[in-house]
Amino acid sequence: MTSLAVAATSTPAARVKETDVLGSLKKVCEAHGLGEMSRQLVSLGELVRWDMVNVERALSELPLRSDVVGDSAGHLVALGGKRLRPVCVALASRLGTGFGPAAHELAVAVELVHCATLLHDDVVDVGDTRRGAPAARAVYGNAASIFAGDWLLVEALRRVVGAGVDGTLGLLLDIIDEMIRGEAVQLESRGRLDLPAATYFEIVEAKTAALFRWAMVAGGRAGGLAEQELLALERFGRQLGVAFQLVDDLLDYEGDGKVTGKAPFADLREGKMTYPLILALERDPSLRPLLEQIVALGADGVLEPTAGARLVEALTRTGAAEDSRRLAHERALEAVACLENLAESPAKDALVTVARATVHREK
Amino acid sequence: MTSLAVAATSTPAARVKETDVLGSLKKVCEAHGLGEMSRQLVSLGELVRWDMVNVERALSELPLRSDVVGDSAGHLVALGGKRLRPVCVALASRLGTGFGPAAHELAVAVELVHCATLLHDDVVDVGDTRRGAPAARAVYGNAASIFAGDWLLVEALRRVVGAGVDGTLGLLLDIIDEMIRGEAVQLESRGRLDLPAATYFEIVEAKTAALFRWAMVAGGRAGGLAEQELLALERFGRQLGVAFQLVDDLLDYEGDGKVTGKAPFADLREGKMTYPLILALERDPSLRPLLEQIVALGADGVLEPTAGARLVEALTRTGAAEDSRRLAHERALEAVACLENLAESPAKDALVTVARATVHREK
Repeated sequence: MTSLAVAATSTPAARVKETDVLGSLKKVCEAHGLGEMSRQLVSLGELVRWDMVNVERALSELPLRSDVVGDSAGHLVALGGKRLRPVCVALASRLGTGFGPAAHELAVAVELVHCATLLHDDVVDVGDTRRGAPAARAVYGNAASIFAGDWLLVEALRRVVGAGVDGTLGLLLDIIDEMIRGEAVQLESRGRLDLPAATYFEIVEAKTAALFRWAMVAGGRAGGLAEQELLALERFGRQLGVAFQLVDDLLDYEGDGKVTGKAPFADLREGKMTYPLILALERDPSLRPLLEQIVALGADGVLEPTAGARLVEALTRTGAAEDSRRLAHERALEAVACLENLAESPAKDALVTVARATVHREK
Repeated sequence: MTSLAVAATSTPAARVKETDVLGSLKKVCEAHGLGEMSRQLVSLGELVRWDMVNVERALSELPLRSDVVGDSAGHLVALGGKRLRPVCVALASRLGTGFGPAAHELAVAVELVHCATLLHDDVVDVGDTRRGAPAARAVYGNAASIFAGDWLLVEALRRVVGAGVDGTLGLLLDIIDEMIRGEAVQLESRGRLDLPAATYFEIVEAKTAALFRWAMVAGGRAGGLAEQELLALERFGRQLGVAFQLVDDLLDYEGDGKVTGKAPFADLREGKMTYPLILALERDPSLRPLLEQIVALGADGVLEPTAGARLVEALTRTGAAEDSRRLAHERALEAVACLENLAESPAKDALVTVARATVHREK
């Protein structure tokens, strides 16, 4: 797997497991003939490479206890992931005074909050696979995962307290509150095939975009940015988060399970209607029995290959997939537009690259 | 049910559901001919009655959302409970400058943290009953309870941040970390009949006593006490917490389910060995098959009345019950001894009463 460390040399730090989002995005860009974006990703990689090496090292050196809860937390964190939220903190801080120790702690914290939600989500969704490996709950049990999620949240908050950046702690608590609201709406919407698109976006804004907003604001505050700039960054984070989730939801059926690390149609099997499916069903109501059939399978039921193929075909035929991807692009462009009043800088260019590249990813 | 409001009059506040720990303790004292303690409880009730009315009102006015997660959190909080931790905050603050707005917020927060752990515990233990009513998870489902626990924790932390009392937030995060460690040790000890007493106490110190320590220190800090006094209060909280848990564990088989609100032998059915059982098995190893049989029943199995009666008989015959209660008394006396260097005051007298009365409770 290529990594963010585009110019990696054999230093001790290079031994630390590195994030791979930019590397994998770069491959995608090359495959799609997006040579210019590939070059932009190299610049982005050079800008935040060491920031991310340090974040990754901190994540690998969490003060985990050697018990079933510590093992469960460590299992998930070590599975890696895109680390896109810490990248946002790093770049936002670099718009200002730079990625100092406080920004570093906030970058670690945002990934820990994300990991905490994944642990609780896996228990709730009875998920068996996460990031291409067995989910922590499948290895260490639900109980350990619940407490491991609690622990990661506490550790994240401890780091935010330690960073001591005004306005980041209270905002994070409010953001987590919002994330929980998203979970509640999602729980109540489970199995509801006629989910309105507005409710889907309500869930996405709360469950996903809210934490991206915090990543941008927290990084910006650590970098000493002005309130006006922080507002722009928060809007950027919101749009980026929605774009990111739209692509995530597309990958649930478009993606290759070996690349995404998830079982295909996992969302639908959990009774979660996503935007592409909402569009497809709206445009072709005859899909309802097929969707009902897949929901009824649950996580463990065996999906007939023909049923899967029919759904993929319908998403293409109705234009639902294309329109979802187009919307993700639009949100990414809106994210970029939020940055227009910020002074030009390598970090700003890098944020533009992140927004554009997010919608080209394949995992 | 009598309540803490010993001298309750028909004011608007009296309509708020009130805490009942002192009321029920008072009844116990009267039943046991402990007239002096009954009088002390009246003084204690007069001292913190309004504090607790306000705490109870705040708990009944939480900013809960009307969704499945908010309902789940509200369900548990409304079930009431002994509210002993907020009483500790109130009394600790009254050793100093008094129960001001900051102490009030900390008192609410400690109960919210406690409720959060109960919600996650019920999911982990697959508990169906809590405080004599269906557990939140049984009504609203595991998923809602997990997120409701997360929400209560966030709300608690928000109040601690808002209270702005130096040293309380970082300590609370460390205390929750410790509570999670206790959960982990307990998880790993599940079903282990040969649990060493030392491990039992490790679990109790972390799962129960830690939060009592925080209640005392947080209240003391809100009241502006000196470091030396805070140390004494922390030690008091620790001993009180252990005494409290020992009695709780005795009530698991001694108690009347209708009074305790719990199914009898619930701990053992969950594979949790408590101190009375550890002592009994140590003294009469022939009890092992009986214990194994009850563990094997799980939460839902039907316990033969003779098996239950045999265990209760063994706890009495071996002196395990008596020695457990004696140890609880000793810990309560040690708690009282921790207060010796504090200036005399009604709040100090009340803390002494709390410690003594805790080991006489029947729920």
